[in-house]
Amino acid sequence: MKKGVTTLKMLAQHLNLSVSTVSRALNDHPDINENTKTKVKQLAKSMNYTPNIFAKGFRKHKSNIIGVIVPNITHYFTATIVRGILEQASIQGYRVIISESDNDVIKQNEMLHTMIQFGVDGILASLTKMTRDIDNILPIVDTLPLILFDKVSDKIPCTQITINDEEAAFNAVEHLINIGKKRIAIIKEREFSYTSEKRYAGYLRALKEHNIEIDEKIILSVDDISLMQGKRMANILLSIKKRPDAIFAITDTAAIGVIQTLNKFNIEIPEEIAVVGFSNSKHSTIIEPKLTTVNQPGNAIGKTAIKYLINEIENDNEADLIMKKTVEIKTELIVRASTFKAS
Amino acid sequence: MKKGVTTLKMLAQHLNLSVSTVSRALNDHPDINENTKTKVKQLAKSMNYTPNIFAKGFRKHKSNIIGVIVPNITHYFTATIVRGILEQASIQGYRVIISESDNDVIKQNEMLHTMIQFGVDGILASLTKMTRDIDNILPIVDTLPLILFDKVSDKIPCTQITINDEEAAFNAVEHLINIGKKRIAIIKEREFSYTSEKRYAGYLRALKEHNIEIDEKIILSVDDISLMQGKRMANILLSIKKRPDAIFAITDTAAIGVIQTLNKFNIEIPEEIAVVGFSNSKHSTIIEPKLTTVNQPGNAIGKTAIKYLINEIENDNEADLIMKKTVEIKTELIVRASTFKAS
Repeated sequence: MKKGVTTLKMLAQHLNLSVSTVSRALNDHPDINENTKTKVKQLAKSMNYTPNIFAKGFRKHKSNIIGVIVPNITHYFTATIVRGILEQASIQGYRVIISESDNDVIKQNEMLHTMIQFGVDGILASLTKMTRDIDNILPIVDTLPLILFDKVSDKIPCTQITINDEEAAFNAVEHLINIGKKRIAIIKEREFSYTSEKRYAGYLRALKEHNIEIDEKIILSVDDISLMQGKRMANILLSIKKRPDAIFAITDTAAIGVIQTLNKFNIEIPEEIAVVGFSNSKHSTIIEPKLTTVNQPGNAIGKTAIKYLINEIENDNEADLIMKKTVEIKTELIVRASTFKAS
Repeated sequence: MKKGVTTLKMLAQHLNLSVSTVSRALNDHPDINENTKTKVKQLAKSMNYTPNIFAKGFRKHKSNIIGVIVPNITHYFTATIVRGILEQASIQGYRVIISESDNDVIKQNEMLHTMIQFGVDGILASLTKMTRDIDNILPIVDTLPLILFDKVSDKIPCTQITINDEEAAFNAVEHLINIGKKRIAIIKEREFSYTSEKRYAGYLRALKEHNIEIDEKIILSVDDISLMQGKRMANILLSIKKRPDAIFAITDTAAIGVIQTLNKFNIEIPEEIAVVGFSNSKHSTIIEPKLTTVNQPGNAIGKTAIKYLINEIENDNEADLIMKKTVEIKTELIVRASTFKAS
């Protein structure tokens, strides 16, 4: 059999497994049982399957360009990650081209393939919200170095750089409990969104661990988590008979809408209602009272992601030895006047 | 002589003119006299000079990808332009790759050439602050469609999309005069920056037209026009014996630093000191009092730029008929509480 022609898909068909399973088996993913791993590896060997065959070809003509794909380049948190990527790229002598998927799986796949044709040395990607069909992304892992950040998927066997949204939200809500709040509302996204779900899970866990009753009436979901929706939700929460004494919005933007509405009705923050956001946007220090929020270290995420990628690019010969791992960048709760009044 | 081999540079050398002059002569730029135009055109004809020769080659393999180069992708105003570009690209069926020059001329030229090699159909560029050496950019005009936006250069014969910074600043300062302010400070950039110089010129013209004395003591220049510098400059202005009664900061970021400092010292805004910014960033409606500022329609700039570019790409045969022009997108002064108290 001609070397280098075997694809992941062929291995998958031979074994009647999914491409995902084959790929993860070859990468020693803990979710795959040893039996399957052995079968896959044996077949891969007998069929002369060579991972990274295209990547090796590209790297002979190393372009020193890294491709970055994100759902929305102008989103604040994404922009801070991109800033970290660009700063570190400059230090390590790489150029970067950036493209936006517009949260559209088809556009995302098109741009991934365009970048590969272009001859980038590696790709950093943050996936679309709806990336459930990962079959188009899996073969890329065998083509060239790929690292996921922020919006990741544990079904793709590559290094992933992320934050622990669940834990960060847990800490934010526990802080509200620690300052004496007992009736904590949440404003989250209605549609399936990985980060929203994780933050909601953190909220629920904090309430449960502190034996606080969960009340559906103060769990509000919105289609788009915007400033306007923050205002609208605050109005709804104020009209409830048994008002909340704290509001956790899963983004700063919505939290700022909440504060503007509370200010309008002269509600004392934090005494009557405390407010916590998420992301430590610049807005959070411009609104009065200043917003308590979770700092997502976008710059560090970007820098870490590109460092791992360049490591993979430059250590191609040992590509199979590089452990694919999930790296969690630490978040931090920044306490400001919206939850804490200096005496 | 073999067709298509003649370059702009060769024409320039033959005539002992600069590449810029030759390029502008061929594009009927108004700055070039008729005599020179005739000479250049005759030589171009006799040497079989064919503009857009590479562009035509590329367009046989139309990639439907547009390259965008900006000094800093995470800068707020730039991000709004990029958003406009991406929205319009999507409507017209084009993909976009974005790169950052980091305000570095060498990186800018590298990326321009990388994008051309990549086979983009056209390029939208906002130049680095220090782009004085345009020799590397001029040949691109003959290679494929190029349109400049925001940070432009009238030395490059291509369509340019911009705002009138001088007039916008004039209107902002005249507004301060109209509300009765007589001692208006400015916070601008120290280093040469096209936009800062234009806004400063508008400030000076407004004062002159209204016979207001120009006082160097309240004309402050900073190295980086940041929130911190806004605070620092406000402190300086408050320590001056004859305090200003208004402050015009050439960016919202600095204006917000000014407001935060005035708030700290309980100075009544706008009664004691009015404040005007520039760019209508999101922050401008989050700070209290809300900031009067110049709206720069970034989205419209982006959309207009890519519409002109796609027009050039898709009407390649008539490329020489497309008038290169400067399109000014209208700004608007948005009056808010930092200069106007509703009674």
